[in-house]
Amino acid sequence: MTGKLYAIGTGPGAADLITVRAANLLATMDIVYAPAARKGGDSLALSIVRPYIGQQTLIKERHFPMTHNAAEKEQAWQAVVEEIKTDLADNKKIAFISLGDVMLYSTWVSVLERLPDGLDIEVVPGITSFALIAAKTQRPLAMETQSLVVMSCTVGKEALAQALKQHSSLVLMKAASCLADVKELIEQQGLLDCAVLVSDASLETEKQYRNLRDIPVDEKLPYFTTVLVNKEW
Amino acid sequence: MTGKLYAIGTGPGAADLITVRAANLLATMDIVYAPAARKGGDSLALSIVRPYIGQQTLIKERHFPMTHNAAEKEQAWQAVVEEIKTDLADNKKIAFISLGDVMLYSTWVSVLERLPDGLDIEVVPGITSFALIAAKTQRPLAMETQSLVVMSCTVGKEALAQALKQHSSLVLMKAASCLADVKELIEQQGLLDCAVLVSDASLETEKQYRNLRDIPVDEKLPYFTTVLVNKEW
Repeated sequence: MTGKLYAIGTGPGAADLITVRAANLLATMDIVYAPAARKGGDSLALSIVRPYIGQQTLIKERHFPMTHNAAEKEQAWQAVVEEIKTDLADNKKIAFISLGDVMLYSTWVSVLERLPDGLDIEVVPGITSFALIAAKTQRPLAMETQSLVVMSCTVGKEALAQALKQHSSLVLMKAASCLADVKELIEQQGLLDCAVLVSDASLETEKQYRNLRDIPVDEKLPYFTTVLVNKEW
Repeated sequence: MTGKLYAIGTGPGAADLITVRAANLLATMDIVYAPAARKGGDSLALSIVRPYIGQQTLIKERHFPMTHNAAEKEQAWQAVVEEIKTDLADNKKIAFISLGDVMLYSTWVSVLERLPDGLDIEVVPGITSFALIAAKTQRPLAMETQSLVVMSCTVGKEALAQALKQHSSLVLMKAASCLADVKELIEQQGLLDCAVLVSDASLETEKQYRNLRDIPVDEKLPYFTTVLVNKEW
């Protein structure tokens, strides 16, 4: 294999929140792979970085199913891995783009662990959604001797309750589907004044609640909904 | 106050790992405040972003003492806060730059909490050192249902041992001064094959150990030394 593969984090949503390195590299690619969550759907990662992609670049949007069906996922990943291997054998310069940072809760890791050893791979980090949320709400992620925990709310109520007790600074991702539980736990521990919620940070659909008490009971929040808690702020 | 204050993360060290937004903003500032760890010393954050700073910009390197003397620290912070307030009253466009991300273990937060409410402040996130370390070593920070803990090794051996037991993915910062303890704990839990160590990521002095067994006993590692542990990789 003689081509080179770049894994590039696109950041959370605004085109100018990618790194200068990512912008420069994207202008020079032969092929850009972009993951799409829906079949035939547009890739959000691609929409972020489209202004930087060169005229000569072939864009390959590929569907990565968000399903609990492991076999279906495996088949989709393997198909992309085989296609990337073929492009590398063909001496192409390839980027695989993904939202936020590519090494954190990212489609890229599913590809990386299925690629053979010995390929020429370079990873370019990206801004995470929670770094942007902290910036927008001006709430520190962690200070001095604080530890920071980043977790998904889908881990269940008990694990969430324990984390809220043990740690002084938390990023709780995917908070939409279990918002009632999250809010209840935060309230029980007297932390409502230390929490903020942001959905779709830097996208057109962005919503911010600096006070969780202000969220309407019937509010339908999107998949990318994050709660920050910092007990010392 | 009619000026505007930008807090800008410079990322971990390479000039092209700042965001496009940060690069664009830095070209337009009246004043850039840069923290220096030593008195009269050069600011590392400044050396990273110097290529982007406009000709018209006044650079103010200011000393933020790294000391346990709280009064000395407070005095230094207050002096900078007063200076920033004066520049804002003078209608200046000001940037305060800081290494990595400004909302995570950052000098900026010490300034932010001392500034009065109602100022026009915009925070621009930056790439953290551990995102770059994960990228360089191609080790995922967290996958799927994993939780990620970011903490300083200075919390003590007991807290470290507990975190290593409870969490499957960890970023252990400031690992140089207590490396023997960290290595012992990781070895005790059979995690030596899941850990990597990187110092001064993307600086000229960078060192990487993909296997903690390879670190010479007499190795002197610098302040910015981080260990990543991912039990599932």
